[in-house]
Amino acid sequence: MDKVFYNGVIITANEKDEVYSSGYVHVRAGKFIEVGSGYPDHIGTEEANFYNLNGRWLLPGLINTHGHTPMTLLRGHSDDLPLKRWLQEKMWPMEQKLTREAVIVSSKLAMVEMLKSGTTTFLDMYHLFLDDIANVVDEIGMRAVITRGIIGLCSREEQIAKLDEAMTIAKSWHGKGDGRITTMLSPHSPYLCPPDYIAEIASEARTLGVPVHTHMSETAQEVEESVNKYGKRPVELLQSTGFFDGASLVAHAVHVNDEELEILTEHQVAVSHNPMSNLKLGSGIASIQKMLSKGITVSIGTDSVASNNNLDLIQEMRTAILLQKGINQDPTAVKSAEGIKLITVNGAKALGLRNTIGSIEKGLDADFIIMQEQQAHLQPAMNALSHLVYSASGADVIDVYVKGKQLVKNRECLYLDEEKIITECNDHYRKMLK
Amino acid sequence: MDKVFYNGVIITANEKDEVYSSGYVHVRAGKFIEVGSGYPDHIGTEEANFYNLNGRWLLPGLINTHGHTPMTLLRGHSDDLPLKRWLQEKMWPMEQKLTREAVIVSSKLAMVEMLKSGTTTFLDMYHLFLDDIANVVDEIGMRAVITRGIIGLCSREEQIAKLDEAMTIAKSWHGKGDGRITTMLSPHSPYLCPPDYIAEIASEARTLGVPVHTHMSETAQEVEESVNKYGKRPVELLQSTGFFDGASLVAHAVHVNDEELEILTEHQVAVSHNPMSNLKLGSGIASIQKMLSKGITVSIGTDSVASNNNLDLIQEMRTAILLQKGINQDPTAVKSAEGIKLITVNGAKALGLRNTIGSIEKGLDADFIIMQEQQAHLQPAMNALSHLVYSASGADVIDVYVKGKQLVKNRECLYLDEEKIITECNDHYRKMLK
Repeated sequence: MDKVFYNGVIITANEKDEVYSSGYVHVRAGKFIEVGSGYPDHIGTEEANFYNLNGRWLLPGLINTHGHTPMTLLRGHSDDLPLKRWLQEKMWPMEQKLTREAVIVSSKLAMVEMLKSGTTTFLDMYHLFLDDIANVVDEIGMRAVITRGIIGLCSREEQIAKLDEAMTIAKSWHGKGDGRITTMLSPHSPYLCPPDYIAEIASEARTLGVPVHTHMSETAQEVEESVNKYGKRPVELLQSTGFFDGASLVAHAVHVNDEELEILTEHQVAVSHNPMSNLKLGSGIASIQKMLSKGITVSIGTDSVASNNNLDLIQEMRTAILLQKGINQDPTAVKSAEGIKLITVNGAKALGLRNTIGSIEKGLDADFIIMQEQQAHLQPAMNALSHLVYSASGADVIDVYVKGKQLVKNRECLYLDEEKIITECNDHYRKMLK
Repeated sequence: MDKVFYNGVIITANEKDEVYSSGYVHVRAGKFIEVGSGYPDHIGTEEANFYNLNGRWLLPGLINTHGHTPMTLLRGHSDDLPLKRWLQEKMWPMEQKLTREAVIVSSKLAMVEMLKSGTTTFLDMYHLFLDDIANVVDEIGMRAVITRGIIGLCSREEQIAKLDEAMTIAKSWHGKGDGRITTMLSPHSPYLCPPDYIAEIASEARTLGVPVHTHMSETAQEVEESVNKYGKRPVELLQSTGFFDGASLVAHAVHVNDEELEILTEHQVAVSHNPMSNLKLGSGIASIQKMLSKGITVSIGTDSVASNNNLDLIQEMRTAILLQKGINQDPTAVKSAEGIKLITVNGAKALGLRNTIGSIEKGLDADFIIMQEQQAHLQPAMNALSHLVYSASGADVIDVYVKGKQLVKNRECLYLDEEKIITECNDHYRKMLK
């Protein structure tokens, strides 16, 4: 039976930035077949189940374009340290202790948190147990881009093995879960992969027909080392490998000069901006206002919770746009209608999924969330878009649907047992501390 | 009967930054008479009612040191405009329409939001209907500093009348509500008050025995105009009026040079840092890392929701400390233990209330909040302080107490009718739009 959600504020995130103060959506077979303002008199109750939104907000499911769910167990394990010590003394030793079971439950913890804060689609880059993570995604009904991060500072044999593994994952999962799962190939970064190897990975990605993803220009030091080692800044270096010759997405892009921006623009490279992680690790602030003005697709990623420390995309988006206003001393920088696009439409574009998701529009898959607006911090009621961007948080999300299927109902995950996952996470974490 | 809360994570915010992973507090007659680790075997059940926290967090009530609750009705009324147009075209015309009833319900809306996000004490600066606001605070059991903001660009007669009114409010409310209400005198700012008048206000404050408060160096333009008009930057100008000669608190302090920092340090001037408002209005980012390293008392204010747009102090504090790490490219800047102090101990110091509140310690008033930690985004459970600072939000607060009296129970305000207030706010806002 079809579903009709009516009498709600519909925040479409469409081209015209339309917000229907009282509107409806009509869902059939996992897709929006109609979106409109007013009450849908023309749809009969024998044709669809009707859900009264009672003024609540309905908007696209949120899209997180960079993260590492297996690291969720390491939330709060270490903060406030210099990057090198943090990685070498705190993160890497713990990551080496991540068993398959720990990775699975860690990813599940992330999925609970993401779903409950309105994220329906996420990119997951990691090097271990990706089949298991993809299996969970498949089972529970979320949407994800699965990609094996490849560190290439190793023997040629190991390089070949890693790329083989990455390609096997990419091939076997691309399009699975009724199209909810797609894949990419991901050299970790220009500083942890030799240029030739990046070129090889990018070339295989073109053959497979999947995009490429990498960490790029996260820190000033990384850029300096690139210049010292290769005589090229990371963007030039990646360009020289052919990385940008097909669909590509780079995470961070904090330290990028104007010439590099031109290259990114010209090659239609999408950016995953991770503002809170970049602040917390002391990396700096990416110039996304400039990127947006050049037409670059800027999306938002949380990075892992080890450096964030949560997966709330609404807070992440707010931080992103407030930062641009603050550092440019310009309150008109990145307005509210642009803000919501960062975590919806632009996320979809960045992941190569814009034909499927990203806005509330006829013909797209019915990935949407419902937010409770009858709360003090979201009043007066009339200014919904402003409140969504400048005052709401993931905690205001109550219901979540992917492809028309409900995954969260009144803040409870229907296909993940939050209590059990929390208990198991703590068991694994305690074991890893020993 | 006494109350004992046990088996919880007690985040004390005391001098030693102690966090008891399983501890208790013993409350009698509105005060903490004991705080400790472990289970309080020595307290009999005939002596106190026992509440099992079941691992939830108990921490000091949060303290918001700068805001304007009557403007809460204007949340989302206008965003993304240049400051001057925003004020002149959007804010001021609406503020002129604020009736007494609108101010009262607007303030109540703010109080619901503050209480539900863990704020127990707030400074409220406004120029209208302060007696009514103070009455609400008195009735509902919160703690507040009430202060009439005085714009001094007017006739001498008006200046006298305004100061008289401010002094009457300060005298009549100081110490009321069983000590929960205190007062200050507040020239609006060095740019909206002539220096002689500021000197007069500051002098009257000393006579009354109350601190002074003002907006200072929020924008670069304001500093430039001060130099052009008076040959002095705002800090020097205020110093010359005697404003800093007694207890004083300045909001913003975004554009303050090293010499000015020395003056603030020397005079023990407290700062209310309003990071999100400063970002949103494009004012810039205050150097609180520098201030803290000099021993300046840095506290956090939200400013009004017209420029924030919420009153969640936990998000505000996180933004504050992440910004310092980011702009200084130093992940060690302002650590988590310092973060929580910004919205507790330092807030109490800034408001002249450190002998009464600010931490969970024997002898202090029992202003505290309880937060629900059994949630995905606050796991693993072991790292509570990190999660509070880097992942939690006001939405995780479930119970709130002021002077030992419960004001919020399981996210419901016991002395404010949220639903009714929301309805009334929307009625007033719609009328004001006409």
